[in-house]
Parts: sequence; C-alpha cells; structure tokens
Amino acid sequence: MNEVHQLLRAHRSIRKFTDETLSDRMVSDIVKSGLCAATSSNLQATTVIRVKDPDKRVRIAEVAGGQRSIETAGAFLVWCADLHRTRRACEAAGGTMTSGMTEQFVIATIDVALAAQNAVVAAESMGLGICYIGAIRNDPQTVSDLLELPRDVYPVFGLCLGVPDQDPEVKPRLPIEVVLKDDVYSFDDEPQQIAEYDETMRAYYRSRTGGTKASCWTEEMAGLVDGERRPHMRQFLAERGFEMR
Amino acid sequence: MNEVHQLLRAHRSIRKFTDETLSDRMVSDIVKSGLCAATSSNLQATTVIRVKDPDKRVRIAEVAGGQRSIETAGAFLVWCADLHRTRRACEAAGGTMTSGMTEQFVIATIDVALAAQNAVVAAESMGLGICYIGAIRNDPQTVSDLLELPRDVYPVFGLCLGVPDQDPEVKPRLPIEVVLKDDVYSFDDEPQQIAEYDETMRAYYRSRTGGTKASCWTEEMAGLVDGERRPHMRQFLAERGFEMR
Repeated sequence: MNEVHQLLRAHRSIRKFTDETLSDRMVSDIVKSGLCAATSSNLQATTVIRVKDPDKRVRIAEVAGGQRSIETAGAFLVWCADLHRTRRACEAAGGTMTSGMTEQFVIATIDVALAAQNAVVAAESMGLGICYIGAIRNDPQTVSDLLELPRDVYPVFGLCLGVPDQDPEVKPRLPIEVVLKDDVYSFDDEPQQIAEYDETMRAYYRSRTGGTKASCWTEEMAGLVDGERRPHMRQFLAERGFEMR
Repeated sequence: MNEVHQLLRAHRSIRKFTDETLSDRMVSDIVKSGLCAATSSNLQATTVIRVKDPDKRVRIAEVAGGQRSIETAGAFLVWCADLHRTRRACEAAGGTMTSGMTEQFVIATIDVALAAQNAVVAAESMGLGICYIGAIRNDPQTVSDLLELPRDVYPVFGLCLGVPDQDPEVKPRLPIEVVLKDDVYSFDDEPQQIAEYDETMRAYYRSRTGGTKASCWTEEMAGLVDGERRPHMRQFLAERGFEMR
C-alpha cells in the first residue's frame, strides 16, 4: 500500500485544534489543490468562503449546535454550490439561464463535494486535521445571510481545518463486501456481515468512551432516519433558486 | 508543495486506456481507501457496482452518448447513493424510515462524492487514470434496471479507471481569487479575472485541438445552462424514493 493510500486510510475527524491560525497562503494552496478535482462540463460550481470574523464564527457555531471547533479551528471554510457565477457568465454571453433544474442541483453539489474532498486530502497531507460540518444546514438561511450569499448559491457544508490537538482512533467502516458489488445490487450475505460490523462498532464505542456509549451501526441508522431530518431544506433551497424542477 | 499536492494538481480526465483489466484486488483496495473519506453521521450511503459484464458496459456506453472508454477502461464502476441499506438497518432495529426528505438526498449524494473522490486520488497515486461519467444520468432508469438497483438507491455517476493510453494537458481552473473569498460573497473584481481566464481557456482549446475549437469558459457556461438539462431527473428520483420533500 503506497503512502497516499496510507494517508487516506488514516483519516479521522478532528474536533480539537491548537490555537494556530492557518496563513492565507496555506489555505489558498489547499483550496487550489482542491479545485483541481474533476468538475462536470468545466462548470466549477464551487465557491469557498473563509470565515475570519470571530462574531460570524460564533453565530455559525450556534447554528451547528454549539460545535466549539468552528470558533477555534485554524481556519473555517464554508463550501458553497454556486450557480450565480454560472448565471452571470451565461448572461454575459447573451444567454438566459434556465434555473431550478434538479440536475443542476445534483451537478453543483457533486462539484463542491469533489473539490472539498481533494482539499481535505491536501490538508491532511500537510499534517492538518479536518472536520466537515454538515450541521450548518440546521439553519442554512442564517448562514447564507451572514455570508451575504446571493440567489443561486447555497452553503453545502462547513469545514474546520487546523493543527490537531487530539489523536482519535480511525472509525471502522462497513466491510468492503457490503459496499462493492459485481454487476448487480444484491445483499444476500449482508445480514451476517453487518452483524459482525455492529460488533466491531460496539467495541469501538466502548473503547472510545470508556464503556459509556453502547451503540452500533444498525442502531445509529435507526436514530438517523426514523423521523424527519432538516425538513426546512426543501423550502430553503427553493427560495435560493434550487426549485428541483 | 508536497507530493500529494503535486498529485492532485496533475489531475486530468483520461478517456483512452490500454487494454489492461484491473484486478479485483486492485479495485477493492482503491474503493476501500475511498470509503475512508468522512461520512455524515456514519451513514456510509455509498454502494459501488463494478460492471464486468461486457453487454452491460455496451448498454451503459450507449446511455452515456457513446463514450467508448466505458467499454474499454480497466474497470468501470457505478457509484450509487444507497438509502436502501439504511432502511434495512432501521427496520432491523425496529424503526421505520422516513424517506424522501431532501436533506437525505443531499447527505447521501455528498457521501458518495466524497468517497469517490478519495478513490480517485487513490487510483491516481498508483499511476492510473480516471474519468467521471455523469452522462449515466442521461437515462438513469436504464442504468438502474441493468444493475437491478432497488428503491432508495440511485446511480450518481460512473467512473472509468485504467492505465492511461494518452497524456492530455491539465485543464486550467478559474483563478483562486474568484473562488475563495473572505467573510462575504462578493464579485466586484470578477469580470476582469474571468476575462483573463477566458483568454487562458481559448489558448488551451486552440492548443489542444490544433485550432479547431474556439471557446472559453463564459461561452461554455451559456451552452450548459441556457435551456433544460436532464429534465427527467426530478421524476426519476421521485420514483426511486427520493421525493425531495
């Protein structure tokens, strides 16, 4: 296994950082490497807002349920799906953008995720730690207002970056046999494989929490999808110009 | 700039491969490293179908507008957003999945994209070339039927992997000043920066096509979003269980 594979497999989310601020140059280099990821039809729908203003970081941390690392990380970035730039380009070329298509939403969201993950690999290769902050979608309107995002732009997720001040274990993943299949989707052998993974996860949580957390993947999933989750997203996106037609 | 940054910045899509098939072990290692990417709340919504059946690859190439590399690449993978596994887990734990939420669609799609981009970096670190195939969404129902995807699963994109048999230039990206902003979304200096990028892209296309292609980013964007694009996506997704509520 080469060093890049080793780097990728060593990933874990970092939620505690030293107080070292990352330089503009460092963040710019990381984002530049991120943007070298593939982009659909050269769309480049990614816009990244680095949030430096401490008050804004406090507000965003509140939105995200009080995640302190948003305030303390060496850098905090909001990754946005941006079709506003596309609209301006289309109009500059004398066209009219047909907006609100579901496909556009899919393409723009994927574009952002590919670029962000590339940036994450770039950051981790420099010894930095990262944590994605999906919880900015708890109140994406407040985040959009703080960052003055125009229509046709939405904040997909946040990203904390910085020098790690903790060294957590790598979280075990589902067995590869469950995830990678040949030619057809089948799940005949899955119950046994997932039962084994559930045991692995129970042991992982016991070890990580000193025995206070007793959960497993199957139970986590029930907690995650039994009930509505961020039900405001549909209307929020529609108001931003992503009507999902 | 370290070697990982250099690797990321050397990315270009490869559309011509030698006839070397990638071993199961190699593909498994690549996908395993991919799956080490962050995943929202440990959801792990990614399922990867490796398409080995030559007939299926011919059919998928047709769907994708005749992209021959889908038939000839050393491996062809379809990356799927999978909430069917989540549903089974939820039910196994005695719960009932609330499906069709827009937020679930966003989370699952991002999960897949992060894992795929990690896998791409892993593959490129081994000297392989890749090309994302968004065009499987030209007819995602046919792809779903071929791969026997159940409800709550949709094919996000394809991925060709293999030993490169071409050596194209790296495609220039938008200037970092356009993409990375501090604290607020602003675009005051953008017209000038984008005009310069348009010139860069004209030179790139002239050089790559021997002068036959004369286009630039601004014109490309007009071609891309002036008019409907894959208008079937909304209904397709709704029928798969992604109703976007």
